Amino acid sequence: MEERLKNLDYLFHPRSIAFVGATETIGKWGFIIFNNLISGGYEGKLYPVNPGRKSVLGFKAYPSVRDIPDEVDLAVFTVPARQVVTTMDDCLARGVKAGLVISAGFKEMGGEYLALEAELLAKARAGGMLFVGPNSQGICCPAEKHYSWMPNFYPPPGSIGVVSQSGNVQNILIAGVVTSGFGIAKAVSSGNEADLRKDDYFEYYAHDPTVEVILSYVEGITEGRRFIERVRAVTKEKPVIILQGGRTQSGMAAAASHTGALAVSDRLFESVCKQSGIIQVGSVDEAGIIATSFLNRPLPRGRRVGIVTGGGGLGVIAADLCTDLGLEVARLSPETLNRIGKLMPNWWVPGNPVDLVAGLRFDTIHPIIEILMKSGEVDSVMFIFIGPPDIEGTRTPRSDRGIDLSKMWDVMSKQFGNYAAALFDLMHELKIPLYPVTNHRFDENIQDRNKRLVSYLTIDSACRAIDAMARYHEYCEGIK
Amino acid sequence: MEERLKNLDYLFHPRSIAFVGATETIGKWGFIIFNNLISGGYEGKLYPVNPGRKSVLGFKAYPSVRDIPDEVDLAVFTVPARQVVTTMDDCLARGVKAGLVISAGFKEMGGEYLALEAELLAKARAGGMLFVGPNSQGICCPAEKHYSWMPNFYPPPGSIGVVSQSGNVQNILIAGVVTSGFGIAKAVSSGNEADLRKDDYFEYYAHDPTVEVILSYVEGITEGRRFIERVRAVTKEKPVIILQGGRTQSGMAAAASHTGALAVSDRLFESVCKQSGIIQVGSVDEAGIIATSFLNRPLPRGRRVGIVTGGGGLGVIAADLCTDLGLEVARLSPETLNRIGKLMPNWWVPGNPVDLVAGLRFDTIHPIIEILMKSGEVDSVMFIFIGPPDIEGTRTPRSDRGIDLSKMWDVMSKQFGNYAAALFDLMHELKIPLYPVTNHRFDENIQDRNKRLVSYLTIDSACRAIDAMARYHEYCEGIK
Repeated sequence: MEERLKNLDYLFHPRSIAFVGATETIGKWGFIIFNNLISGGYEGKLYPVNPGRKSVLGFKAYPSVRDIPDEVDLAVFTVPARQVVTTMDDCLARGVKAGLVISAGFKEMGGEYLALEAELLAKARAGGMLFVGPNSQGICCPAEKHYSWMPNFYPPPGSIGVVSQSGNVQNILIAGVVTSGFGIAKAVSSGNEADLRKDDYFEYYAHDPTVEVILSYVEGITEGRRFIERVRAVTKEKPVIILQGGRTQSGMAAAASHTGALAVSDRLFESVCKQSGIIQVGSVDEAGIIATSFLNRPLPRGRRVGIVTGGGGLGVIAADLCTDLGLEVARLSPETLNRIGKLMPNWWVPGNPVDLVAGLRFDTIHPIIEILMKSGEVDSVMFIFIGPPDIEGTRTPRSDRGIDLSKMWDVMSKQFGNYAAALFDLMHELKIPLYPVTNHRFDENIQDRNKRLVSYLTIDSACRAIDAMARYHEYCEGIK
Repeated sequence: MEERLKNLDYLFHPRSIAFVGATETIGKWGFIIFNNLISGGYEGKLYPVNPGRKSVLGFKAYPSVRDIPDEVDLAVFTVPARQVVTTMDDCLARGVKAGLVISAGFKEMGGEYLALEAELLAKARAGGMLFVGPNSQGICCPAEKHYSWMPNFYPPPGSIGVVSQSGNVQNILIAGVVTSGFGIAKAVSSGNEADLRKDDYFEYYAHDPTVEVILSYVEGITEGRRFIERVRAVTKEKPVIILQGGRTQSGMAAAASHTGALAVSDRLFESVCKQSGIIQVGSVDEAGIIATSFLNRPLPRGRRVGIVTGGGGLGVIAADLCTDLGLEVARLSPETLNRIGKLMPNWWVPGNPVDLVAGLRFDTIHPIIEILMKSGEVDSVMFIFIGPPDIEGTRTPRSDRGIDLSKMWDVMSKQFGNYAAALFDLMHELKIPLYPVTNHRFDENIQDRNKRLVSYLTIDSACRAIDAMARYHEYCEGIK
């Protein structure tokens, strides 16, 4: 790792923070972010810097960073652009190692503002301080209860490392991770990337043992050759999942006025991904679940998929989607089909997808999945188990003359949970990953956090997760 | 409409139902469906038919359909396949007009079972009875509290008509409609389509004033030429949205053993859609929201999209997706940009997407949308307003030292709601459709059901909704 990147420890794990522009004026970022930092439970020292106030939200305020009596690890800036530049001198004088520039009004404005950003960068570089932004939404490190960012949103700690060139997109990426049942190691909205660039964060995350998977939104790349080389070193260690913005002419134009980024074309970025082992994803809403797919699950060692489905139509859709993505609906041998057939009623039509015509009985499903995993004929197993939609009010009988079956699916879901732990162990023993598609949580009965396994609400996202993990396996095999 | 299809009134609006195979044996479809029918609140007469019982779930049982004392409008069959054929004679003897065959074990099994299905069809046709299935999950007509189907799921009444060749897929399609805030006029799981085919239901729905939009899952088409002709007549009146299953080699094979359907290739189906004005959709999870997009919203009269976004990155993603789909990110004239600029702070970078750099202030957003709609430079407006993720526990402060802002977004959402009614009226006055992308319900403050407007959780689905509606407008213009 580059020597200077070690200072990123001060960014994520600061013992003290100077907050330049902290205020009690509701609506200002200096209020919202400072308040989020407090509400998030940050346990280090907080020094609001505001020459007009004696205190901010109960913390003693200082006229300048120079007046703070203790050492300062991190400075957060929410003052107007020109003031950021002048305040930087105070920070350097006090030996502050890391900065987080929320303030906008730099490169993204074009013209004279390019020079302002260059001036800020030159000062920081000369003084040995690194900084995030400008035009950043902020950062978080949940394990430290450190939330220096705009949204009043406190995701739990976990093992996904996030880098996003957009704050709002970052929120959606993280929401995807959290709704999948997992949490965040560190997240940074990189903004204009005047100093620290996305590949710097990637490199830092590669050496951070709390990060298992890297998830990123990218609008532009600087120094493509160097970017590829650095990312190759990262993807050797950990999967890097990237959503690209600004792929098209219109998107590029929008990106230019957003972060001042020089977006790269669809085709060029695809080539960058191929060379560096990046796993590209297409949808902001799916990116989070693709990232968490890699947690606690072995990689598929090939593209042959066994599909076990409660519902024939869902099997048809799964087969189509697998084919679209270049996955193979595994051809099962007569022996394997025979073995499965013995567990099925006589109206079962042998084949893959394995349609559970007899209904969702778990004393059958578990051995069927085991037969598939042990057959040597599949590299992954998708198991589709979608009960009636669980939408408020629509499961409640509209008359009390019948028997209320609304709890039936909850009972089945419990049964499902009882098998989840056994299937989890089998998956790791045989190294055949399992992808449950269900509107129940597959792992809800599993207490051990290390045995959590993301399940999918849609067949589409499960298929794309298999494809993403197969692509990563293929890349890793190729560079061995 | 074909004369015989009038008998479909007996299917959806029966005054009396004979339920062949009704039972109290838990786990059997004869129990589950009969119980759902009762629990759903069906108000007509119910005659369980079961020679082994005196009563079923409190209703007097009859040994045979012939023994029922009154007229029977609809017969539901859950007995084994061969018994369906013999019981059909009893139904014909009693002049039953419509049948719903849940029982499987016909064409989808191949071989001798093809003949069994042919025998059933010949009998029914000769006796003037039409029937759904076999191998159907059932039907529903919520306005009549009529739920003759497998899932314990009672969607509310509404104006979407559904036809699905798969029961499980039907559940997902309907779930999409209901979570969008709308309901179902009629739904039918068409199964093997021995007698009634999807185009029969389409034709019936075309003449049904309660159906505004038709939504369908299709695995195969019989008599393609005739299908196209009939559907052309339907799409002239109402939009028909179709998800195709069995598009690929593997999907076709799966479809054959599912409903015995002769699936058609991707390319052939695309040509069918083009000729008949069908709006094809790609994802089962998105189909429902695409269908409800057509409700209470004018069609875009072109492909120029104005994008108003709270968050630059989301604007970049929207611009990319629009371009992918052949939509045009509208070029705004200097006059229009000037008008918008007057409402913006001086650091706003003029352009489309219109990035709300000043934050989400509704006294600004409303006039900006109005300027765009009145400019003559856009055919639709997408408005992106995504607050911090609303995931249980993640908005609650982790320390009580700060000010709890978790209600802030709810307050903003209310403000949003206050503008919704005015924007709804403006949209209809100017005939420029509005597509709100938000994790708050756009229409939650609107009481009038006819002014409900679906909002989108993802930019992806909003873009695809605009494209679907633009395609339908282009088709309608082309056949004028």
